[in-house]
Amino acid sequence: MQVKLKKGDRFVFYFRTVPVCVLLVVFMLGTSGFASAKQISQETSACLSCHEMVTPGIVKDWRTSLHSNITPSDAFKKPELTRMVSTQDINKKLASVVVGCYECHGLNKQSHKDNFEHNGFKINIVVSPKDCATCHLDEVTQYSNSKKAHAIKNLVQNPVYSQLIDATISQKILDKGILKSSKPTTSTQKETCLGCHGTSVKVEGIRDKKTQMGDMRFPVLSGWPNVAVGRENPDGSLGACTSCHPRHSFSIEIARKPYTCAQCHLDPDVPAWNVYKESKHGNIYFSKWHEWDFKNPSWTLGKDFKAPTCATCHNSQVVSPDGNTIAKRTHDFGSRLWVRLFGLIYSHPQPKHGDTTKIRNKDGLPLPTTLTGAYASDGLISKDEQQRRLSAMKTICNGCHSENWVDGHFQKLHNTIKETDSMVYTSTMLMMDVWKSKVEDKTNLFDESIEKMWVRQWLFYANSIRYASAMTGAPDYATFKNGWWNMNETLQHMNDWFKFKRQTRR
Amino acid sequence: MQVKLKKGDRFVFYFRTVPVCVLLVVFMLGTSGFASAKQISQETSACLSCHEMVTPGIVKDWRTSLHSNITPSDAFKKPELTRMVSTQDINKKLASVVVGCYECHGLNKQSHKDNFEHNGFKINIVVSPKDCATCHLDEVTQYSNSKKAHAIKNLVQNPVYSQLIDATISQKILDKGILKSSKPTTSTQKETCLGCHGTSVKVEGIRDKKTQMGDMRFPVLSGWPNVAVGRENPDGSLGACTSCHPRHSFSIEIARKPYTCAQCHLDPDVPAWNVYKESKHGNIYFSKWHEWDFKNPSWTLGKDFKAPTCATCHNSQVVSPDGNTIAKRTHDFGSRLWVRLFGLIYSHPQPKHGDTTKIRNKDGLPLPTTLTGAYASDGLISKDEQQRRLSAMKTICNGCHSENWVDGHFQKLHNTIKETDSMVYTSTMLMMDVWKSKVEDKTNLFDESIEKMWVRQWLFYANSIRYASAMTGAPDYATFKNGWWNMNETLQHMNDWFKFKRQTRR
Amino acid sequence: MQVKLKKGDRFVFYFRTVPVCVLLVVFMLGTSGFASAKQISQETSACLSCHEMVTPGIVKDWRTSLHSNITPSDAFKKPELTRMVSTQDINKKLASVVVGCYECHGLNKQSHKDNFEHNGFKINIVVSPKDCATCHLDEVTQYSNSKKAHAIKNLVQNPVYSQLIDATISQKILDKGILKSSKPTTSTQKETCLGCHGTSVKVEGIRDKKTQMGDMRFPVLSGWPNVAVGRENPDGSLGACTSCHPRHSFSIEIARKPYTCAQCHLDPDVPAWNVYKESKHGNIYFSKWHEWDFKNPSWTLGKDFKAPTCATCHNSQVVSPDGNTIAKRTHDFGSRLWVRLFGLIYSHPQPKHGDTTKIRNKDGLPLPTTLTGAYASDGLISKDEQQRRLSAMKTICNGCHSENWVDGHFQKLHNTIKETDSMVYTSTMLMMDVWKSKVEDKTNLFDESIEKMWVRQWLFYANSIRYASAMTGAPDYATFKNGWWNMNETLQHMNDWFKFKRQTRR
Repeated sequence: MQVKLKKGDRFVFYFRTVPVCVLLVVFMLGTSGFASAKQISQETSACLSCHEMVTPGIVKDWRTSLHSNITPSDAFKKPELTRMVSTQDINKKLASVVVGCYECHGLNKQSHKDNFEHNGFKINIVVSPKDCATCHLDEVTQYSNSKKAHAIKNLVQNPVYSQLIDATISQKILDKGILKSSKPTTSTQKETCLGCHGTSVKVEGIRDKKTQMGDMRFPVLSGWPNVAVGRENPDGSLGACTSCHPRHSFSIEIARKPYTCAQCHLDPDVPAWNVYKESKHGNIYFSKWHEWDFKNPSWTLGKDFKAPTCATCHNSQVVSPDGNTIAKRTHDFGSRLWVRLFGLIYSHPQPKHGDTTKIRNKDGLPLPTTLTGAYASDGLISKDEQQRRLSAMKTICNGCHSENWVDGHFQKLHNTIKETDSMVYTSTMLMMDVWKSKVEDKTNLFDESIEKMWVRQWLFYANSIRYASAMTGAPDYATFKNGWWNMNETLQHMNDWFKFKRQTRR
Repeated sequence: MQVKLKKGDRFVFYFRTVPVCVLLVVFMLGTSGFASAKQISQETSACLSCHEMVTPGIVKDWRTSLHSNITPSDAFKKPELTRMVSTQDINKKLASVVVGCYECHGLNKQSHKDNFEHNGFKINIVVSPKDCATCHLDEVTQYSNSKKAHAIKNLVQNPVYSQLIDATISQKILDKGILKSSKPTTSTQKETCLGCHGTSVKVEGIRDKKTQMGDMRFPVLSGWPNVAVGRENPDGSLGACTSCHPRHSFSIEIARKPYTCAQCHLDPDVPAWNVYKESKHGNIYFSKWHEWDFKNPSWTLGKDFKAPTCATCHNSQVVSPDGNTIAKRTHDFGSRLWVRLFGLIYSHPQPKHGDTTKIRNKDGLPLPTTLTGAYASDGLISKDEQQRRLSAMKTICNGCHSENWVDGHFQKLHNTIKETDSMVYTSTMLMMDVWKSKVEDKTNLFDESIEKMWVRQWLFYANSIRYASAMTGAPDYATFKNGWWNMNETLQHMNDWFKFKRQTRR
Repeated sequence: MQVKLKKGDRFVFYFRTVPVCVLLVVFMLGTSGFASAKQISQETSACLSCHEMVTPGIVKDWRTSLHSNITPSDAFKKPELTRMVSTQDINKKLASVVVGCYECHGLNKQSHKDNFEHNGFKINIVVSPKDCATCHLDEVTQYSNSKKAHAIKNLVQNPVYSQLIDATISQKILDKGILKSSKPTTSTQKETCLGCHGTSVKVEGIRDKKTQMGDMRFPVLSGWPNVAVGRENPDGSLGACTSCHPRHSFSIEIARKPYTCAQCHLDPDVPAWNVYKESKHGNIYFSKWHEWDFKNPSWTLGKDFKAPTCATCHNSQVVSPDGNTIAKRTHDFGSRLWVRLFGLIYSHPQPKHGDTTKIRNKDGLPLPTTLTGAYASDGLISKDEQQRRLSAMKTICNGCHSENWVDGHFQKLHNTIKETDSMVYTSTMLMMDVWKSKVEDKTNLFDESIEKMWVRQWLFYANSIRYASAMTGAPDYATFKNGWWNMNETLQHMNDWFKFKRQTRR
């Protein structure tokens, strides 16, 4: 028997019932259809001819990207909600070829100190946000205002935080029974603090190297490799888009899945990922993600996803099923937030600008609060702005939760912030006694046993409880994992240890 | 060339080779076919007309549910093994429409203190197990006997456990060098202990609120939002089915995936999820779940799944490939278990009833054992009942493991229970010395440094080792993570600390 | 309308756009096609006739395996890169039937002390690597040289490590205020150290047992069940292939997914899995694995996978898109590694042979280094061999990373190894003072509070930092989780505790 497929019969069946699959097929057909027609530039073709052999993984990854399948000029023709480019101010040549090796690694040569002669082409090793801004101008502009873009200097140029770095990652030697500290090496900084905050990538010279393709010369870079959010690039720009859109697929899907944020936002200091995993949102994500669509730029609630990932609440374009924008896409991370849960050493209103180096508290210290919790208000957003942002966040929650529910949730959070700050206050008052008694000295605030217990109180435990509260879940985390249990336990230990130390001094 | 699809040729190929895919298609076709024919009640249509806009996520979630695609009357017609409803005693009107907003939020109005006038309808905010029992009577009846249903009072009304709550989540202030404790707030209780155990949801009044749809009045609920297992509802019932069947899809798939149980059963106190992740069972699940079927009510071993999740052993209907029932579905969690691994402070036979408030040990304390380990036998199941349950569990194991293997496994578990109880005994004996010496007082058994170390011994470490043993895996967990290493380390620390404290007292 | 599928039109569309799906279909069609033609031996048919009922999970699992769908004789005909068998020296009868129950459990009867009479057949309970070598000779030969194969005696026969076992898993009793230790039980050893290292499986006798199928006799095995890498089998062979190819599917897919290695290689002592999860490689894996192919024996970079799992770098056959071998498959785990990051107590060159029992350091102790860090060079690979292996590893990295990038990465690792070893040195020097002062005695090096802090320094923290460095990621792990923070904190605690103990002794 011959099966006759009638239009509107079998095919409708497929379209109705396996939409993700079909969309994928249509999408891939579409793009691969395009691809054959699309022009790969001569320069990129030259790159590919060698790199297809020497670094095949990079090339294969790129071939799965939208970049390899669309020209900027076609990308601009897409309807606004699904368009991912944000400037048309781009030269004709670039606009008419797909976004290949040379289109990115050959940009803005004059400002790139890492530019070098490579088989007849002038190539930049590092592709920077300034280069990406060629097409993605809005995203880069937004990003440049975020705390992420300024993550290096916000940390390293702050003398208080610098003490914490020293106390955490410096080597010790034992000299006649006394522990002595040396300065952290740049190599270890790269693997620890700066692994998330970013390195300063600098050209240190040039070197000759035997390669598979013969002798070649390459710039020698310090602070490399690094793909962290605040990277200072050899063209003077800040950031690395590849932090969240990794390698050469530049995937929106990867950036929206929670594993990306989880590279840095995890326990014990910023346990967003750990809390998410234990939350109801996380439960639904892990159970059902395979039925969702992470690629639709106009991310539609209820259709493309049924529970939020990090990106949903913090930066994605979120759209209702009837096409209304619930939240506009932003790459100014933090701009949707009203309170900074991350205690330094107390929670506080979000800073006005991503560059927090200028903030001074009432004691003149470069901290957003004093040691007793008073805000450095000049550098922090106002109550009105806080209210505006909270209100906008509630709109996102309301997509799936009644107003009653959402109000109840944020009341809890408000109280939790207050209580954890109060516990940090008590721990800090105890430290005041410790320092006054000279049992520990204040040369470095973070390097002795009791001081480290105190750091745990705000950097690990108070933070954890606040994250658990904010993300609607993880009661066990807030209680026993790195939460209330630990905060009360450590307070008792601090108190006892203080007595032990006084005793041994006698 | 024209490809002719002969029946029994190409299509058979599809059916044989991509069964999950095809089943899904058939299922979705089926249900969406049904859906168009199925009647949505007038009341629910009214709900949808606004909520499609104000909370589109809820509506979209519901549209993916079985509830939105089947009427109770059709559900009852399914063959027994795949039927998920358990009473026919339901009025005709309800039976003939799909299970929509109003069918659940409009039930048993008179007993719902949270019922309120909402656009011409009388609506309950909270849907309770008593409401779900309209169709799922057996499940709710079983559940009402479980420890889960009584999770609030079992914890909060127990004066010993109450001390532990106080010691864990109360705020401290430093008053002239002395740490003083206040009572835990209800808000923090909600986010910690009661986040898993459940809150008492009470109507506190009524409030006017500006909404997107104009001014409205809503009941003000305390203890809300909360979706925990022992929730006390405004209609007097216990539990929240949405704990495990979250939001408005009421999915059996989500409940069977381990992420659901992982919301509460995780380290450091109940590390079922952590052990599962490190176990062979977990390894196979994470590697192969995408080829399994989590939706077949009659969950068939070897066909629908190849390694157990939590639900397999603890409550799902498990069926052999030839259709024989290996284990009947139960919502009386714990009813398949013979021993309670969770040490309070020792392991012990499972309690006879989910309400454990009446249990008294030989010292008159509300605990299942004495501080030296003697059972409060009156409230605990008998040896015969233990044997019967162990035997039933072995039947599940035998689905994939030889009797030899299974016997060897449970011998190990038996020994581990004995050894960990013995280690808790040693730690407790040390505490007796501590309390006798008055280094720590017994006003609260859990609030001082050494006491907290002792709590770690049974609540974190002994429990962890037992869970690792019970779930056939996680040797590293049992050794180093929260296991033997920690138990021996903490014992040494307790011993030293005891000496330090005696010294500082002098 | 009749849809006419023209060859080279619709089908090309499918092949281009859903390659994984199609490959899967073709693969399954292929194998199921074969299966109907393939011969199941008479013996295996007899096994199946009962075990289909008594252990249906095992049978169903086997039916999904390649073993159940191919004969050795056909397997040998596959082209070299996709062939998974490695000897043709196999008798005709075995070669002509699919690999069923009897083909594995009926091998080499005379050397199997666990062989027993079972319904007319002579059956081995345990299938050993020697049995698997019937077809997979090269794999077993390679494996037998690995540290994994010798994992039991390397641990248990080493008197230093034995002290660590005793200190970790032995029970304690409190005797007149003094903690006394007993010897670890074999049962607890099985669940902890030997759960990963392996047990010695021995036949202890025979027992009669009532089963579902009537009275039967079975050998009684000690050390059973166990599926760990160094298992000593009743035929004298070492290892358990099912450690990584679990149960009866013997899947290459499961072995290549990281959950398999994660059963043993996890925090706090060997945190490979934990670091992977937080790394860029892990992020990409978790986001994109569902589009990859884990079953192609000739695992093709960029096509079958786009980011490495453990198996990629450590043992799989890795092939470039143009078919060149980047790395040959090996089951000698560790043979691709130049340095052993796992500190005992310092990092050191990999041992020459998997059997490390003969290694002696310059102080005559059975350790790869002295307590001051000098190598036991005789038992460790040379600098040249280290260089050769590092170079081979770089070739794998170069698949996706430029040489610049890779060089920078390994420079960092080199420095981190040096710094962490130096921190362990400082901690050990402090211990020398502790032991000299007689505050702790050296009867057991690992059983007192300060000693346990010292063990944490190298076994948990230094290891963690090195793993985080080696696997290109996890900066937070290296800093705060089990890393630099903890190493510096514990050093301060050790120093203080030393003083407290001296004080209490006075």
